[in-house]
This record gives sequence, C-alpha cells and structure tokens, in this order.
Amino acid sequence: MKYHNISNYNFIYSNRGMGLENDLNQANKYYLDKNIAVIYKKPTPITINKVNYKSRSDAVITEARFKIPSTTDYNGIYKGKYIDFEAKETKNKTSFPLSNIHTHQIDHLRKIVNMGGIGFIIVRFTMLNQTYYLNGKELFLFLDNENRKSIPLSYFKEKGYLLKEKLRPLVDYLEAVERDLR
Amino acid sequence: MKYHNISNYNFIYSNRGMGLENDLNQANKYYLDKNIAVIYKKPTPITINKVNYKSRSDAVITEARFKIPSTTDYNGIYKGKYIDFEAKETKNKTSFPLSNIHTHQIDHLRKIVNMGGIGFIIVRFTMLNQTYYLNGKELFLFLDNENRKSIPLSYFKEKGYLLKEKLRPLVDYLEAVERDLR
Repeated sequence: MKYHNISNYNFIYSNRGMGLENDLNQANKYYLDKNIAVIYKKPTPITINKVNYKSRSDAVITEARFKIPSTTDYNGIYKGKYIDFEAKETKNKTSFPLSNIHTHQIDHLRKIVNMGGIGFIIVRFTMLNQTYYLNGKELFLFLDNENRKSIPLSYFKEKGYLLKEKLRPLVDYLEAVERDLR
Repeated sequence: MKYHNISNYNFIYSNRGMGLENDLNQANKYYLDKNIAVIYKKPTPITINKVNYKSRSDAVITEARFKIPSTTDYNGIYKGKYIDFEAKETKNKTSFPLSNIHTHQIDHLRKIVNMGGIGFIIVRFTMLNQTYYLNGKELFLFLDNENRKSIPLSYFKEKGYLLKEKLRPLVDYLEAVERDLR
C-alpha cells in the first residue's frame, strides 16, 4: 500500500501517456483562443464516496474511485457541428491494440456518427513518433469486417491521416476533420 | 472536521439540488434509448492529488479537490447539432440569482451560440415546482441590457418556455429546443 503523487500515478497507472493529452489540450486551447472551435477534454469520471469539508470553498474528497467511462474523452463544436473523439497512445510499433478502447466508447462513437456528428479516434504510436487521425466510418468498417484484436499500422497509413507535427498547434487534428468534411 | 457520505454532502454542499439533475439524467437516458439524442452530464471536474492503489482495478483516490468548472455541465448532439446547457435549481420564489452560474460558464455558452450551437439554461424554481428553459440569446439579451444580479421569474415566463411535467421523460427539454429550431 503506497502513496504516489499524481505524476507518478499517471505514469504507472494509465496506459495512455500524457504526451498526446498535453498536445491535444494545447491544440484545443489554440482553437478556443482563435475562435476556431470549442472542444474540451471531459473530466475523469469518478464516484465520490467521502468528502471532508469545513466550508464550501475548502472541501477535500478523501475517498473516490475511478469509473469506467461511458463516453469518449473529448467533445465539442466545430463549424456548428458536434465533434467527438477518443485519443490513445500505444508503445506498440506495428498495430494499435483494441483493448485500449472500451467497447461502450466504440458504441458511443457509432451513435454519434449515426446522428450526423463527427466521430473519430486519434492514435499515437509513441515509438514511431507518429500520430494518426482515423475517422469513425473507417474505424467501424475495420471492426465490422476484420476479426482482429488490433488495428495494424498499415490500416492507419492507408485509411487514416498522418497528423504532421506543426509549430502551432502541434497536433492540428481539425485539419484532418476539415479534409473529411470536404 | 466531519465525514459525510455523498448524499448528505450533496444536500448540504451544493446549491444545486439533485432533483433536477436526476430528472435530466432520466431524460437523457430516455433520449439515448429512443435514439433521439446523445447528451450526457459531464463528470465533476476535480484535481486528483493522491491515489492509493494496489492494482489497476483497485485504485482509490484519497485526496482530491473540486475545481471550478470552465464549461457547462451538459453537452451532446441532437439532429447533428451541438447542444450545450447548464441546469440549476433555486429556492428563490421570484427570481433566479445569477450568482448560481459562473461567469465563464456564461462566456462558454456565448461561444457555443456564436459558433452555431444550441445553448441554453434550465432553471427550476423548486418552491414553485416550475422548470423553465431559456435559450442563450434571450439569456444574453437580459445580461447585456439589465444591470441586475438576478433574472426575475417574469422574464422566464415571458421569454422562456415552461417545461410541463410529462410522464416520460419527466422533463422533456428537447421539446423546447425543437420549438426554437422551428
């Protein structure tokens, strides 16, 4: 039974690195500042069990647990349209293990796309330093036709869109969305 | 220094009752099940300071604090369009105190409406058992023209839309959205 601070915690606990998350937060801030889009990462879903408080402004949660997310992590608005996506990192060099995404997150993305929203995933292959955008339709096509536990890198290369590192924002994923909208 | 369980906590700490929140969760579940809309309440934003974990599945947050939300609580998609709103209860019988909504939540709603999204607030006057929908434009019109610290009930009656209690869902706020879209 050990206590760790949050940076250690994220490093050890989460299979999703902070690198991509930081890049996306930076991109979202850029989009917001430039009045391009309003997209946020949702807070981590938790169940709060105990709160120790003296006053309204000084409440400390002393017991809470992580919940399995029922939706994706990111959503917002771009050109009046609803945007929704999940972002993941993998250390794998040849494929993206589907165990990284919860089934109900995929189901959620399907609902979004069916309703006319823009749904996609962003996957970073950290060892290759490559970040791909894959739109929902191509993702579902793979899932529905291939009986595999991972999406090969080649599929991202063929059906996805490599997000080349830019100066600002570093990961300009709306460029890929824009390409899809055209 | 006292410990309370979460139901007590919400009752005492939050000025926003659970009644409206429960009704909206029920409505959102109904919309989701009927394939009408995909709208969720965002998790409460917190800053996690300490996590005690033995394994991935058995992590307990032992120290966290509430963060001031930078966005509204609810968002999602309806008919391809982006939907965003804040919901509040008040015990006041004659007006809705604006101190109930953070300034950056209002700013957020302005950005959404400017981008072509559907933004609004839902306010329940618990003592009157009346729940109103007020669209963003009418809200901003009031805020920009009236130098007041609260929105009088009469404004909701005149410019808003009274959400009559239905059987299912109890609070059918998309009815009001639909009226606005027409």
